[in-house]
Amino acid sequence: MFKKILIANRGEIALRVIRTARELGIKTVVVYSQADEKSLPVLLADESVCVGPAPSNASYLNIPNILSAALMTGAEAIHPGYGFMAENPDFAEMCREHGIVFIGPTPESMRALGSKAGGRDIAAQSNVPTVPGTGVLDSVEDALFAAKNIGYPVLLKASAGGGGRGQKVVRTQDELRSAFGQAQEEARLYFGDPAIIMEKFLEEFRHVEVQVMGDGQGHVIHIGERDCSIQRRNQKLIEEAPSTLPDTLRQEILSAGVRLAQHVNYAGAGTLEFIVDTDGNFYFMEMNTRIQVEHCVSEMISGLDFVKLQLEIAAGYGLAIQQDDVKLRGHAIECRINAEDPDKDFRPAAGKLENVHFPGGAGTRVDSHAYSGYTIPPHYDSLIGKLIVHHDTRDLAIARMKRALQETVIDGPKTTVPLYVKIMDNPFYKRGAVLTNFLKTRMEM
Amino acid sequence: MFKKILIANRGEIALRVIRTARELGIKTVVVYSQADEKSLPVLLADESVCVGPAPSNASYLNIPNILSAALMTGAEAIHPGYGFMAENPDFAEMCREHGIVFIGPTPESMRALGSKAGGRDIAAQSNVPTVPGTGVLDSVEDALFAAKNIGYPVLLKASAGGGGRGQKVVRTQDELRSAFGQAQEEARLYFGDPAIIMEKFLEEFRHVEVQVMGDGQGHVIHIGERDCSIQRRNQKLIEEAPSTLPDTLRQEILSAGVRLAQHVNYAGAGTLEFIVDTDGNFYFMEMNTRIQVEHCVSEMISGLDFVKLQLEIAAGYGLAIQQDDVKLRGHAIECRINAEDPDKDFRPAAGKLENVHFPGGAGTRVDSHAYSGYTIPPHYDSLIGKLIVHHDTRDLAIARMKRALQETVIDGPKTTVPLYVKIMDNPFYKRGAVLTNFLKTRMEM
Repeated sequence: MFKKILIANRGEIALRVIRTARELGIKTVVVYSQADEKSLPVLLADESVCVGPAPSNASYLNIPNILSAALMTGAEAIHPGYGFMAENPDFAEMCREHGIVFIGPTPESMRALGSKAGGRDIAAQSNVPTVPGTGVLDSVEDALFAAKNIGYPVLLKASAGGGGRGQKVVRTQDELRSAFGQAQEEARLYFGDPAIIMEKFLEEFRHVEVQVMGDGQGHVIHIGERDCSIQRRNQKLIEEAPSTLPDTLRQEILSAGVRLAQHVNYAGAGTLEFIVDTDGNFYFMEMNTRIQVEHCVSEMISGLDFVKLQLEIAAGYGLAIQQDDVKLRGHAIECRINAEDPDKDFRPAAGKLENVHFPGGAGTRVDSHAYSGYTIPPHYDSLIGKLIVHHDTRDLAIARMKRALQETVIDGPKTTVPLYVKIMDNPFYKRGAVLTNFLKTRMEM
Repeated sequence: MFKKILIANRGEIALRVIRTARELGIKTVVVYSQADEKSLPVLLADESVCVGPAPSNASYLNIPNILSAALMTGAEAIHPGYGFMAENPDFAEMCREHGIVFIGPTPESMRALGSKAGGRDIAAQSNVPTVPGTGVLDSVEDALFAAKNIGYPVLLKASAGGGGRGQKVVRTQDELRSAFGQAQEEARLYFGDPAIIMEKFLEEFRHVEVQVMGDGQGHVIHIGERDCSIQRRNQKLIEEAPSTLPDTLRQEILSAGVRLAQHVNYAGAGTLEFIVDTDGNFYFMEMNTRIQVEHCVSEMISGLDFVKLQLEIAAGYGLAIQQDDVKLRGHAIECRINAEDPDKDFRPAAGKLENVHFPGGAGTRVDSHAYSGYTIPPHYDSLIGKLIVHHDTRDLAIARMKRALQETVIDGPKTTVPLYVKIMDNPFYKRGAVLTNFLKTRMEM
């Protein structure tokens, strides 16, 4: 096993990786920006290296500085967390060139899966359904022709995009004529690549995703699925495992996920995201080739440590478990605690946390870098922690989440905690009738 | 199920009961002394009633005031927690007379098991071994005769005693002559009953206990055993489940525990405490007819909520699970966080907790009523919280506990946390070679 790893991330996921590394006796180096000097991962890591000023481009995306930090401290491997460099195949390649293990899949499979067009191709090859749509569209004429076949409304997406950014819903020919060039321009601006694809736009659906682990030798297992339908602006807020899908459908989606990951000889932890429409059709959207924010709900129901599995695979030990070893038990829910004001369109609220008191008790897990006196820097995302609960059934897990939320004290900036208490009481949420437009249609937000 | 219960306790166990009650939709009333007005359970319960000034006799042991609080608030049942009134059959009887359910066994089985002499009788009837010893001794002559048969050293114990108080080790006839009357006097003083029994004194042993649940109709299951050998002054500091005993011995002890509890038609949660000597002989010591501080380690490996089971049994739903439903998984360890100074003979350290930050992450549970700014009152025991971890193996659980302890920040009075970090590194502890004299022989304390 590695003796020392570097963590190229910040916040709760940096702390998450430190925890498992410590438990395995692996030394940790964490890189940080000047804005994160007093953050909990920096205080808890064995070593820390400042890699630049606050803006991400200058620090957490600063490849030369991060690689230097790894070489300087003798770290054998780099864990990228999520976001930042986690899905950057160039970074993974540079790690390899410098003799440092990138804890994640190969640059080749990241590239193959990294574009939406590429993901659609691989899905087709693995006999996994995708939303009716196209490859990269060369012109507005191609787009108009494709939209006629698919049927309006359609969605324009940057092929290189992610996280819902730069997506455009188009409902008529006229709209499409004016939107296409604009979408290309924005794609170039956001993702450095103007390539645009088109998909059928579904008004109402669930977001369901499959957690997989692969050994890079064709052995892929799933660790169940998650429902992540409660979102704001295409960003997840609440996730749960398992989903409330009927069992046959669940099994079909799980098999589809494993099939696709097997097709690319996937190595490490990955997530296959699916849309499930209200008629029970499911479509592959994209694969995230990294650990996800919401991995903890799957850890809770499986009892597995995904970072441990990632480290073992990256260190060449392969995948220690078979599909039959994965025993899922009970139900888990995660609420992302964001420093933002739900009543003001989730506007981020940076500032000092005067007093932080997290809940405890059975089946209650807190993953957070926040502490009393910590100042949230304004430069990064608004996630200050995750509250995850586990119980025997979904009803009991909801009751436990509500209980845990009510124990939570965060004095300072507004957070999403009070909203989550209301959601736990919402009758639609309670019976699992949850689509991605939940906040709009069921909470009037 | 009950609509409202009263919790006749304080601190972490009051909070523990509130948590499960909330999750089951049961309203809670907590009673408190004037010293506990700002404690977390009082802040989190649905209702709270002050039952008297700080000294326990005037509040937490004040039966008329507690019963009045229950009647006044319409509580249907009383959860006594541990300590205080938890093993007081008179209180249980008075609850019954007032039409309030006592959440625990019947006064009859509490009485039968409540004295050490009675416990020995029941053990004999259930074919469960006890340490060679006697019933109540009437005179010093009887004691001398018994000691000759048993062999020195022997232990004098108050039959009505508990928690190690008033025990005397006697190594010679002369010592016994002078100690016997003194022991009677102290027993009368501490426990209101001068009755003394004698047992063979074992210098080195493990403390292993069996967790049982009974429905009061003869159905009793066990939920594994715990090793609680790490103690100071006969008080437990660290507990774990399962024990490191060989499997055959473990099974024999578990069966003995179930057999004895079945013999008394036990209802609710209970614990049978055993001594295991270095030759692998085991002896029943006593039964605790209540939930125990260390129940959480058994919850972690079983996934069961013991307070939920207690409530279900007390409400007349019986025992929802059979022995085969109990699936134990992995290894759990609990450290009791006491506000006391291990370097000064564990002298209690009351005062204000300026800053409290508990650890999080996978398999890490915190049960604590402490928070930043909380002042520990000097009137009660020094337990300010429990840190419980769970992982696949004992080695991993130890690593996780060390990691979690190192994340813990408690600014204010001294605590036992730094001692536990050292114990997690101790080679004898690591290989499970743990006897009740561990602190003296392996840590030189």
